[in-house]
Order: sequence, then structure tokens, then C-alpha cells
Amino acid sequence: MNNAALYAAIDLGSNSFHMLVVHEVAGASRTVAKIKRKVRLAAGLQADGNLDAPTLQRGWDCLHLFAEQLQDIPADHIRIVGTATLRLARNIDVFLAQAEAILGHPVRIISGEEEAALIYEGVSWTSSGTGRRLVIDIGGASTELIIGEGTSAQLLNSLDMGCVTWLTRYFADEALTDANFEQAIAAARTVLTPVASTYLKLGWQGCIGASGTIQAIQEIMVNQGQDEHVTLEKLLALKQQVIACGHISQLVLPGLQADRISVFPSGLAILIALFNLLAIENMVLAGGALREGLMYGMLGRRQECDARERTADSLISRYQLDREQAERVRNTALAALQQVASSQPLDTTAKPMLAWSALFYELGLCIEYKRAPEHAAYIIHHIDLPGFTTAQKQLLGALLLNQRDTFQLATLEQQSAIAPEQAILLARLLRLAIILCLRRTRGTVPEFQLTTQGVQLTLTLPTNWGQSHHLRANELQQEAQRQTEMGWPLVIEER
Amino acid sequence: MNNAALYAAIDLGSNSFHMLVVHEVAGASRTVAKIKRKVRLAAGLQADGNLDAPTLQRGWDCLHLFAEQLQDIPADHIRIVGTATLRLARNIDVFLAQAEAILGHPVRIISGEEEAALIYEGVSWTSSGTGRRLVIDIGGASTELIIGEGTSAQLLNSLDMGCVTWLTRYFADEALTDANFEQAIAAARTVLTPVASTYLKLGWQGCIGASGTIQAIQEIMVNQGQDEHVTLEKLLALKQQVIACGHISQLVLPGLQADRISVFPSGLAILIALFNLLAIENMVLAGGALREGLMYGMLGRRQECDARERTADSLISRYQLDREQAERVRNTALAALQQVASSQPLDTTAKPMLAWSALFYELGLCIEYKRAPEHAAYIIHHIDLPGFTTAQKQLLGALLLNQRDTFQLATLEQQSAIAPEQAILLARLLRLAIILCLRRTRGTVPEFQLTTQGVQLTLTLPTNWGQSHHLRANELQQEAQRQTEMGWPLVIEER
Repeated sequence: MNNAALYAAIDLGSNSFHMLVVHEVAGASRTVAKIKRKVRLAAGLQADGNLDAPTLQRGWDCLHLFAEQLQDIPADHIRIVGTATLRLARNIDVFLAQAEAILGHPVRIISGEEEAALIYEGVSWTSSGTGRRLVIDIGGASTELIIGEGTSAQLLNSLDMGCVTWLTRYFADEALTDANFEQAIAAARTVLTPVASTYLKLGWQGCIGASGTIQAIQEIMVNQGQDEHVTLEKLLALKQQVIACGHISQLVLPGLQADRISVFPSGLAILIALFNLLAIENMVLAGGALREGLMYGMLGRRQECDARERTADSLISRYQLDREQAERVRNTALAALQQVASSQPLDTTAKPMLAWSALFYELGLCIEYKRAPEHAAYIIHHIDLPGFTTAQKQLLGALLLNQRDTFQLATLEQQSAIAPEQAILLARLLRLAIILCLRRTRGTVPEFQLTTQGVQLTLTLPTNWGQSHHLRANELQQEAQRQTEMGWPLVIEER
Repeated sequence: MNNAALYAAIDLGSNSFHMLVVHEVAGASRTVAKIKRKVRLAAGLQADGNLDAPTLQRGWDCLHLFAEQLQDIPADHIRIVGTATLRLARNIDVFLAQAEAILGHPVRIISGEEEAALIYEGVSWTSSGTGRRLVIDIGGASTELIIGEGTSAQLLNSLDMGCVTWLTRYFADEALTDANFEQAIAAARTVLTPVASTYLKLGWQGCIGASGTIQAIQEIMVNQGQDEHVTLEKLLALKQQVIACGHISQLVLPGLQADRISVFPSGLAILIALFNLLAIENMVLAGGALREGLMYGMLGRRQECDARERTADSLISRYQLDREQAERVRNTALAALQQVASSQPLDTTAKPMLAWSALFYELGLCIEYKRAPEHAAYIIHHIDLPGFTTAQKQLLGALLLNQRDTFQLATLEQQSAIAPEQAILLARLLRLAIILCLRRTRGTVPEFQLTTQGVQLTLTLPTNWGQSHHLRANELQQEAQRQTEMGWPLVIEER
């Protein structure tokens, strides 16, 4: 008995095996299961190139778990791939024969290039950005480097180094010393050197990192109150913190999860070598990689547009937002921004973030009306938002929270996407746009002029407009009072 | 340009004017605006029976606000009613002529009986319960008393007393004294006496209170850490707290909102008289009354079923829940409960609450997978849940939060709907049902026996079941460990 709405993507990695199960109903897909077992396949690869018996057994035991769920999923809704360690294992046939018997489905051992291509696909589904980007994924036994633009990968490589293999080779004594780090970094440089120049020559505008090592680094940084950008300086500081712990068994860093500890130093060493040799200035975390590449491919989503457009479509349908009203508020907010932008320089992120916040402003209504701004901020804070970085999510959440009623200044000041003054300006414009659109009906938004003088905003409406638009005139007066009390004068005038 | 998806219900009450605007899209309706202005109409009724000029003007000013929004709403999606003070006002024609000109829509002055009938309709849409119920709504200038069963009202009365008129008459000096309370209570008894016996004769199983006075009482009680049931004892204690404040200008009670203060003592006095004369044992707050009666009537929802069934339907469609899976988990949980219920007496609320929590268990997935139980509890905590009392919402939230992973015991212990041991048992059964159903597919739930011995649960599965169902067997083992570590042994056996 198959369940035609279920999809599964399975990734037999060198460090962990993962199964992702998605349920798709009425165009909305949601994750209903994530199962992960740390099989640590790469650690079982012996000198003769064979996987040892206990490791084979750990792998098969895990596949038995996955198999139970797979029975219920149509065969063409399942993708199972094996990566680096399975590519290298000489006794792969032994593993595969039993694995496919357990799973009842074929396992595809993908080449390094295929893996790199799928990773790029997963990143392009889930991350936004224009121009060429460098994508880096540090796995258990391989590291993929890709340069691509939009949906097409232009330069692909899979290198034989990973956080499990580098652990076994350079941190075998589990000592967290300068010497071990130097060896591990030097070895990574040796692997990287032959390909580095082709990457440097092609160049890129942004760098995105996928995989557990980079996620762990970001979690540690967030825990230390830093922003989301990974830089060489931060990596070197982190290396010193790791060395200060002395031994892997003593390694404790706030934000570092227990099951990530042992492979963290080796992954960090590889990343430092990458930053060094490719002169990477900063890196952000990807929203997804291999498994997402497998899954989105199966779900047949449109891939040509920006990840954020897709995210917006998905939110509008999942939360049954009133798209016409959302677009009206967005257009009004952007028209307001346009009028004030000439007099004050704005970060390039400001305009799109105002547009997205306006599009999503009613998210909280799916819970209830009274505290809807809080609910919207809660949803944005927790939801997967492919295409938006963590800092952008913070800013969106802060704008949604400040869409009406009393200002909650702290959130606008604490977000790290743009300067606090700019975030405050965006919130003020969003609030005005919402009031101007409150009739929710085409043709009801008045023509207006917005001018600035320092921090003061002056909104000019048509002659006698207030006399025939009592509700909005009343709301605008209340809003003028609120903004003025915050120290940001707002004057409402008629022409 | 009309917006065919908008609906408005307007209630011109003796204390406040309210407008409720609902947007209906794809079968999901959500509140998009709530506008309330404290017009205090009843206070402007002069000795000659006319509304004075300033009061008429306050009313019309408020209607100007409403009118702007009404332009965009189809005429047959609008209901505007006037109640007690407008029934009494001798110069009603003056008020109405101008009011209807401003609104562009007719205002219907409803009789006390009609008001009572609409209130009952609003309560029956939004509150659950079987058997006959007494519904009480204390307005600004009238108090409605209804006995009904299901959707039909059997005994209706509207009495000429309310929290604004009783304020003017018995707390004119704003002194919070025993004497003023005694007068106000005695006057309410005089109004009630002629009808009390017919209510006592017909009788009721449950009592539900609507309107601001009762909501304010509940908010104060919640603030004081008490449960949701209003009793005479609590009302008398509250009266003493009010008297201790001495004067209305000094009246401060934690949980009492500023705009409710002045009419609170008079409303409380009326309620005490009602409890006294009708020997009411306890009362819970309604989910809605007059405006909801107007609104639900327009939206054409099916009314024949229980309010909770309607709420469940609405949640399933709004949050795009997988109904088949939800019902599978519910049936499995109920089958488990059935098997253990014989050995331990359970509160009558326990079984339905287990069923509802199972039906709603995946609510949090609309936000994201990893912390889905927290999200589900958040949603239940904040959402309007017609038919469920506050205590039942707490229990539902606690069960949803405890549906998997580490137990969060405090929430199960702090809810006040059922005894903590019973809530823990329900959580244990819900978790087992979710694991047993994790294949999300018809025909995959095994036959099982569940037995209890004290706090120990023993789950017996078919012979060799674990050998061919690795994932669930593994999850059940983990779950057995979690429950056992909490001091509630769970043994998994095969037949």
C-alpha cells in the first residue's frame, strides 16, 4: 500500500546516513521525518581499501531502519545515493548487494562530479544571490568545490579530503595541538593546490558553505553573539579556542553539539586551508545541499527564479495569505521608499527587505488577530526560509513585529542585516503603507508625497482627503503620535 | 469597487461600538480588523429619555471611521445592529437618520429577545458542551439570560440593567463601598426576581458567560493563578478586593484593563446578584456572543455539529493537516486508552482531549520539523479555539509539546483540566500512537495489547514484529528508555 504523497531522499555519507521524508499535500510540502545515524563509514575504511565488517554491519543496521519507511513510498519518489567512502571502498559490491536487498531499492554510487552537481543544485534551490558564487561542501571523506551562477554550475571538483579522513590521519592521537593543526592544514593545501588557480581565475562574487562543519561554526558564532559571516580571522580565533581545550575528549565550545565534536577540529583545519588558498573573504551558510538537491529535483519545483521568489510563493500558499493585499502593501511601501531614498543613502539590502516584509506582513493572522505581529515574527524566526540569510531573517522578523501598535525598538536595533536607523526607517514606512492600504481594495490607496528632513517624515495627502477617509485619517494621526513620541517626528498634511 | 471576500459585523452597544471585519479566502476565514471605540452611549441617556448632543456626536464620529471600511464590502456581507440604549432612546430617529447616512447601510435596532437569540447563536457557534446551558451576557444597558440546548434557545429574556446604567445609578459618587455594592446588588435582585423562577424551573447543566465583565473577571483570575471557573466565592473575594481600593479612580487589580475599570464594580454587582438568585455553581467564559452570532450567520457555516468538530475542520484546512494520518493517530491513541481505561478511573475530559490532541499533533509542521512540538503548543496557546475552554487549551498544548523527544513535565503538571497523572498517561499514549503510526500508511499499524500495572505500561506486539519493523522497533526502544527514565516504566514485548 503506497502513499503517493510521500517522497524520500537518502544520502549514505561518509560520516552519517540521512533520510529526509517529505509529505506533499495541495502544493504544500512539509518535512514529516528526518532520520540520521552516525555510521562513520569513512572510519571503517582499512589500509587495503575494504570496509571492515563492523562498519558494514553499522551501515546495514541503519538501512534496516530506513527500509521500514521506504515500503510505503512509491519507487519513483525515492532517491538513494552513496558518496565518497562508497566510491573508494573496494568491497563496495558486498555492501551494495546486502544494502539493496534491505532497502528494496537501488543505491546509486555517484561520482565526485555528480555529487558536486547535486550539491550545487541543492544550494541553488535554497540560497539566493546574484552573480557567480563559490560553493564549498566539506563531507566526511570528500570536499566539493563548485563555482556556478543562477542554476548552472560552471566549475566542479570533488577532492579526496574530509572531516572523518582528516581526523583519522592528523588527529589520530586526539591531541588538539598547533602541530596537528599545522599538519592537517598543510595536507589540505597540498590537495587544494592543483585546482586552486582555476577557481581564482574564474572568480566569484559570493561564497556559500554547506555541510555540518560550517553549520557547526555558525552555531558557535551565534552563541558568541557574532554575525553570520564566516571569515578567516574568526576561523583562526576558533582554532585557538579549540587548541586551548587540549584534547578532543575535553573539547567543549558553547554551541557545538556533542555529536559534532570529534570531527570539528579536522573540518576546521580544512576550512582554514580553503580560506587561505582561495583568499575567501567571507562565507555564509547554505540553506541546503545534497539531500535538498535530490528532493527538490523530485518535487519538480520551478527552478528558474530566485530562491526567495519561490519561498514567497510557498509562504503565500502555505499560509493562505491574501496575495492581492500583500502586493498592494508592498507596492505602497516601495513607492514610499523611492520618495525618501534620494535624500538618504540606503544599504542595498534595505529595499528588497522592505518588499519582502510587506509581502509577508499578514503571516501572523493564521494564528490570531490580536497579537498577529508577534506571531508573524515567531513564524519567520523558526521557519526554513530558503534564500534568506540568518541576518535577513532577523531583520524581517523585526519589521513584522513592528508593523503596528507600540514600537519594539530592541529587535530593530539588534538585527545585524542593516544599520539600526535604516531598519527603523523601513519599519516606519511599512506601518504607513499598511494604514494607507487598510481598505484592502483596489483603487483605494491615495496618491501621496513623502519627504524627509533629518529624521522627520512628512506625508502629504490630497486636499480634503481626511474629511472623506475618517478611518485612515484617524489611524494616521495615531501613528504620527506614536512615531513622534519615539523621537521620529511624522507630520501628516494635506496638499 | 467591492471586495467580495470581506464581511463586517457591527454592534452599536451601550458601552462600546465594535466593528469586526473578516476576510474569507479558500474556505479559511480570518479576522483582518477589529475596531472598537468606547462611545459609552448609555451614559448619555438623559432623564427625558433622549440621548444628549455630545453623545450623539461621539456615536456619529465613530460611525465615520467604520464607514470608510464599509464602502469596500458588499451590502449583503454587512450586519449592523443597535441594542439596549438605542432601543430606549426617545430621539432614536435623530440618531438613525444621521447614522444611516454616514454608514450608507441600514442599522437594525434589535429587540431584547432578538439580541438574546443572537447572543445564544454566537455562543452555540463558539462554545461546546452537551445538555441545557444557561447563557448570561451583561451589556452596558441590558443583561440577556438564555437557556438553550445545542443550537436552539428555549428561554430568552433581556433585562433592563447593565454595567453602564448600574454605574450611573449606584456608583455615581465613584465610591467603592459596601453600601454602594449592597444597593447595586439589591437593585439587580429586584430586576431578576420576576424571571428567576422560570429559569430555576427549567434548569441547566452548564453556565456560560459572555461580555466584557466576565472576560475581565477571567483575566484577573488567570493573573492570580486561579483556574477558569467563576464561582460565587471568587466573586465575593473580588468584591472585597475592589472595596479595598476605596474609589474608582484608585481601582487597580492585576489583569484588569484600564478601559474596563469604571464599569467593573457595577458589572461585578450584577453578576453577584445573578449567582445568588439563580444559585449558579460555576460559569465559564464564552468564545463569542452577539458579533459572532452575526458573523457566523453570514458566513454560512454548518451549525448542526459540535463547535469543536467545526474547529477541528477549520484547523485541518487552515493548516493543511494530513487528515488521514491525524485520524490514524487518533484511532490508535483511543484504542490504547480503551485498553488501559478499565484499570484506572479517568476524568470524562481525558478521552476527548486525547482524541483532539492526536488530531492536531502535526500542527507545528506548518512552521518547521525540528521544533514542531513547540510550534504546535505555541499555536494552540494563541489561536482562537471555539468550543475549547482555557484549561482544555492548556492541556492540549501540553500534550502537543510532549508528543516526542524529551518530556517537558512542567506543562503537564501545570495544566488544570485534569489531574497531572492523567495528563502524563495521555502524553505517554499519544507518543506511542505516533510511533506506531509513523509509516503514515493504511494497514501498517500492528495489533497491540497495552496493559498497566501501577504506573508501568506493557505494550505487546505480534510475534517477531520487531524483526521486520526495524524503524518502529528502534523508536519504541528509545521511547521505552525515555519513559522509564522519567519513572514511568514502559516495557515493549512480543507475543
